[in-house]
Amino acid sequence: MGKILEKIRSPQDLRQLSRQELETLCEEMREVIIRTVSDNGGHLASNLGVVELTVALCLTFSPPKDSIVWDVGHQSYPYKLLTGRYSKFSTLRREGGLSGFPNREESPCDSFTSGHSSASISSALGLSEACRLQEDDSRVVAVIGDGALTGGLAFEGLNNAGQFRRNLIVILNDNTMSISKNVGSLARYLTYMRTKPGYIKAKSSVEDALGRVPLVGKPIARLMRRAKSNIKKLLYNSTIFSDLGFAYYGPFDGHNIKELSETLEAAKLLKKPVLIHVRTYKGKGYQYAEQSPTLYHGISGFNVDTGDPGEKAQTFSDVFGQTLCRLAEKDEKICAITAAMAEGTGLAGFRQQFKGRFYDVGIAEEHAVTFAGGLAAGGMLPVFAVYSTFLQRCYDQLIHDVALQKVKVLLAIDRAGIVGEDGMTHQGLFDVAFLRTVPGVTLYSPAYFGELREQTAYLAEKGRGLCAIRYPRGRELYKPVYFHSGTESYFVYGSHSAEICIVTYGRLFSFAAEAADKLGARGIDVKLLKLNRVIPIAADAVSEVLDCPQVFFFEEGIRQGGVGEYFAALLLEGGFAGRYVLRAIDQPFIKHAPMFRALEQLGLSTGGICRTVLEHYKEEGAEFAEKEA
Amino acid sequence: MGKILEKIRSPQDLRQLSRQELETLCEEMREVIIRTVSDNGGHLASNLGVVELTVALCLTFSPPKDSIVWDVGHQSYPYKLLTGRYSKFSTLRREGGLSGFPNREESPCDSFTSGHSSASISSALGLSEACRLQEDDSRVVAVIGDGALTGGLAFEGLNNAGQFRRNLIVILNDNTMSISKNVGSLARYLTYMRTKPGYIKAKSSVEDALGRVPLVGKPIARLMRRAKSNIKKLLYNSTIFSDLGFAYYGPFDGHNIKELSETLEAAKLLKKPVLIHVRTYKGKGYQYAEQSPTLYHGISGFNVDTGDPGEKAQTFSDVFGQTLCRLAEKDEKICAITAAMAEGTGLAGFRQQFKGRFYDVGIAEEHAVTFAGGLAAGGMLPVFAVYSTFLQRCYDQLIHDVALQKVKVLLAIDRAGIVGEDGMTHQGLFDVAFLRTVPGVTLYSPAYFGELREQTAYLAEKGRGLCAIRYPRGRELYKPVYFHSGTESYFVYGSHSAEICIVTYGRLFSFAAEAADKLGARGIDVKLLKLNRVIPIAADAVSEVLDCPQVFFFEEGIRQGGVGEYFAALLLEGGFAGRYVLRAIDQPFIKHAPMFRALEQLGLSTGGICRTVLEHYKEEGAEFAEKEA
Repeated sequence: MGKILEKIRSPQDLRQLSRQELETLCEEMREVIIRTVSDNGGHLASNLGVVELTVALCLTFSPPKDSIVWDVGHQSYPYKLLTGRYSKFSTLRREGGLSGFPNREESPCDSFTSGHSSASISSALGLSEACRLQEDDSRVVAVIGDGALTGGLAFEGLNNAGQFRRNLIVILNDNTMSISKNVGSLARYLTYMRTKPGYIKAKSSVEDALGRVPLVGKPIARLMRRAKSNIKKLLYNSTIFSDLGFAYYGPFDGHNIKELSETLEAAKLLKKPVLIHVRTYKGKGYQYAEQSPTLYHGISGFNVDTGDPGEKAQTFSDVFGQTLCRLAEKDEKICAITAAMAEGTGLAGFRQQFKGRFYDVGIAEEHAVTFAGGLAAGGMLPVFAVYSTFLQRCYDQLIHDVALQKVKVLLAIDRAGIVGEDGMTHQGLFDVAFLRTVPGVTLYSPAYFGELREQTAYLAEKGRGLCAIRYPRGRELYKPVYFHSGTESYFVYGSHSAEICIVTYGRLFSFAAEAADKLGARGIDVKLLKLNRVIPIAADAVSEVLDCPQVFFFEEGIRQGGVGEYFAALLLEGGFAGRYVLRAIDQPFIKHAPMFRALEQLGLSTGGICRTVLEHYKEEGAEFAEKEA
Repeated sequence: MGKILEKIRSPQDLRQLSRQELETLCEEMREVIIRTVSDNGGHLASNLGVVELTVALCLTFSPPKDSIVWDVGHQSYPYKLLTGRYSKFSTLRREGGLSGFPNREESPCDSFTSGHSSASISSALGLSEACRLQEDDSRVVAVIGDGALTGGLAFEGLNNAGQFRRNLIVILNDNTMSISKNVGSLARYLTYMRTKPGYIKAKSSVEDALGRVPLVGKPIARLMRRAKSNIKKLLYNSTIFSDLGFAYYGPFDGHNIKELSETLEAAKLLKKPVLIHVRTYKGKGYQYAEQSPTLYHGISGFNVDTGDPGEKAQTFSDVFGQTLCRLAEKDEKICAITAAMAEGTGLAGFRQQFKGRFYDVGIAEEHAVTFAGGLAAGGMLPVFAVYSTFLQRCYDQLIHDVALQKVKVLLAIDRAGIVGEDGMTHQGLFDVAFLRTVPGVTLYSPAYFGELREQTAYLAEKGRGLCAIRYPRGRELYKPVYFHSGTESYFVYGSHSAEICIVTYGRLFSFAAEAADKLGARGIDVKLLKLNRVIPIAADAVSEVLDCPQVFFFEEGIRQGGVGEYFAALLLEGGFAGRYVLRAIDQPFIKHAPMFRALEQLGLSTGGICRTVLEHYKEEGAEFAEKEA
């Protein structure tokens, strides 16, 4: 195991290998990926699908001189293995280890950091134009999945790139899947292209086509003739891609290294943008993943021999999905929308139970929100379930197509806060701050399943305008014994005369309550203020702490524009004259690490909260601080 | 004049008119629009281009039962004239008068408020699905320009809509223009479709095509036969639109009412999404606008007889454009990017002087930013000039494709603050608040031309990461005599011992300075703190006012997440114990009104600043307040 792979220090090393060795290498890569993901969790099916494609790219191009931009990055593990990161691969997604996504800081071979979908054509075009302007002959390749191609940004990139006369290679990695089955009419069109080769007739022979490609002369014609058997299907006209100015090649078998690398060599020679359509299979080479590519798209670990992912504890997503189904049984206005995340957001049950009111719009968050605005203007109650990090993509649509229309839309914001192993491209730390700027938003932040249920129902029934509820990835934390949940806008626990008040919201409340207990055990009287409704903050909630000498605010979100600053302004305008200490997240690009570890390092765990309070608690504080340390 | 138009109270009234009367009506509409825009300013060329199309739509559909969604809304004046708003049309864009855009609050015939591009297909699809779910047989039509079609959101909408089996009609209003000439490969493709009718061969006769449309039976075939001469060009296969699941009809002459309305009648009968490609001419019927559609796209008023728009005072956009040219002469790394706004952002000179480094990417703000990220990662210095309100569209790209990449990109944010007559969809009030949440941003906010020059140069030369400079629409306000500009992060004027400090940034400084003079004349000692650099605020700037008993913050931007709250948090954490009064904009959807009037009503003019200070200035304050009133 790993014999050939061990010798690959850079993509150039691949060129020494025989065809047989390349195939062995692919087997080795698959084994390493399956083993590592089974231990560390990660994206399995998408990575297994691009092993041969990655080998072909590394045979044909020379990173870091040439740039390969991986869209989203769910498929970058094989590339990491071939670009000097094999020896560290067991650290994948572990604290301090390799990222699960391409990362400019991790390797010069990663030309653009990615994690969000549909951006690769645009960034690759930028890299390509930078080469042109600096008279650098380096090549630029973007690899984008058929799922990511449903994002409008990808279309904007194609539309802009199609008019340039410089070689830019876009690989369409067509595996018919987003995370779930890919949707939309483009997906249907690609199926048509794959399954009915007679549908699109080549208007001319390869030679003719070459004759029409500007600035391409005889040597290229010769080279392409040599690759003739592979490029029979070249240069179809009247595809969407050729209409947009790309030379279209394909579809090709994405698991045939020889065919792929010859095609890539030929494509390099064109002085215009090229789209190479490659058919791959998600999960290729691991039977369980081939059978259930959605389950094995992103997974937390599993038994390699049986494929068993183990028991899954109930998550906030599950509870949200169940709650929405219960509400939709009573209210026929409720519609659910997802941007290609039915499973991740807990909507799979809704999809089954209310097919006519369920919309998977593809990876198209902007459209999801504007479409929701239209549904609402037409009298329905749309609920858009989306990960916090992807909600960033529709900021303007929230303002313009919901808030400004004065219609009611409910956002279910999943993966809010620290997400753990997916790391810096996926942290859900911006949502509260940017939603604060959207006029008329109501935002609740439950800490527990019971709150999520109650608050979702409350917003669906009573909320007005743009309503949102945000909840963290994964499981519920322990509840403090004295806790009772509810839909009140806030909740106070502790004596009125306490000298210290800890204010927080969301799951940090569990830590804050634990910290209050610990501090209480040492004689420090701490009052707790839990904000259930984070936007707007109730005036009464501010009044509760106006007389408190020391107010500490802890926030699992960015500091800039966050609720802690908002609370500060309310305190100051209310005449507060005590000490205010705000601990939120200043640098939100937080690397991958287990969720608890990350919170600990940010000073937002129980220990961190205790330390911060004690540091500021003068006399007694000094003593406790030492004990803590 | 206006004889027929006066009688049109609703679209239904059009059906009584003869063909000749309809033509006279169109002439009347053009006259009213030209006269009104010459007085009030507004969008001229785009509206003149859709007079006949609007008449055809109103003949065929029945708003408000049927929904007509106008993309962007630059072309909604004729529709206003025909939907009961003729008598108020002279108030267009005036305070308290008709909006220059579709507005749900203005008329039930405006089914969706618009102002930002490329959203119409998505919102129309939402309206259409709401009809389906509620078993309402109303029709939904989206009208979108070829410029707006370059926005990714429009593609997302097409991709999602194309798979539904319900009638949804999208009119592609193809005038070959965005604001400037439309760009990108889709634009080239549309030209091809228009000019080479032989290029796309109809694969089957109209009858055959109808036979293939599911659920459409004989009566429709009959009806379509009648309209035969108009639909000869129907149902081309292999257009981008048919690939995306739409029945494609066209291109049609957009100035032929009979052809258009017959086509629309036929299109209504299909039980699937339909795209009708219509060729119109911007400025149609007014020679000056036909000749210079870009100049007459949006205009502040002009002489009807001569077309003379009068002398234009120098604007911030002009100064920015000149400055960037000067910088680009010295620095070959500088590239300029616009999203279809070369003229509006002052980049027309740059386009001419540095063709190879100028990029008009179409109406595609997301792509603009991600493309800039790629250019920067490749070693260039991209400068994206964009209106504040449209920068909202690329929030995630700023985070993910610039800030996270740790590359340098410069944003030139035009039309920041109150924009005046364009009104609520175009106010530039969010930029500071959402940019605050983007990690590592540096933002300057010049009040004067000199500052804009110096700060742009400073950021281009010395700035790091995501740098931005925001400046208002139009002209420079007067400078206070004691003012000297610079690139310091802040500027203080007044005595250290002043009891009152007014803090502000951007053009409000002129008002604040005037207010300070007025207050000073009445014996109230006021210190001024002008923040040049708004993000991050310099610690020293906060120190300057920590001991001041009363701090007033005035902000031409939203309160929520804005700089005033940020300053409050810094003050509170710094131990400030005085009074803090924050006046910013709570409700940022501010209707159209002259810029000064809007600021006055928001309490952000000189008078408003004086009043706020006096109200809080106890004894003396009471007396002054009365005098002011």
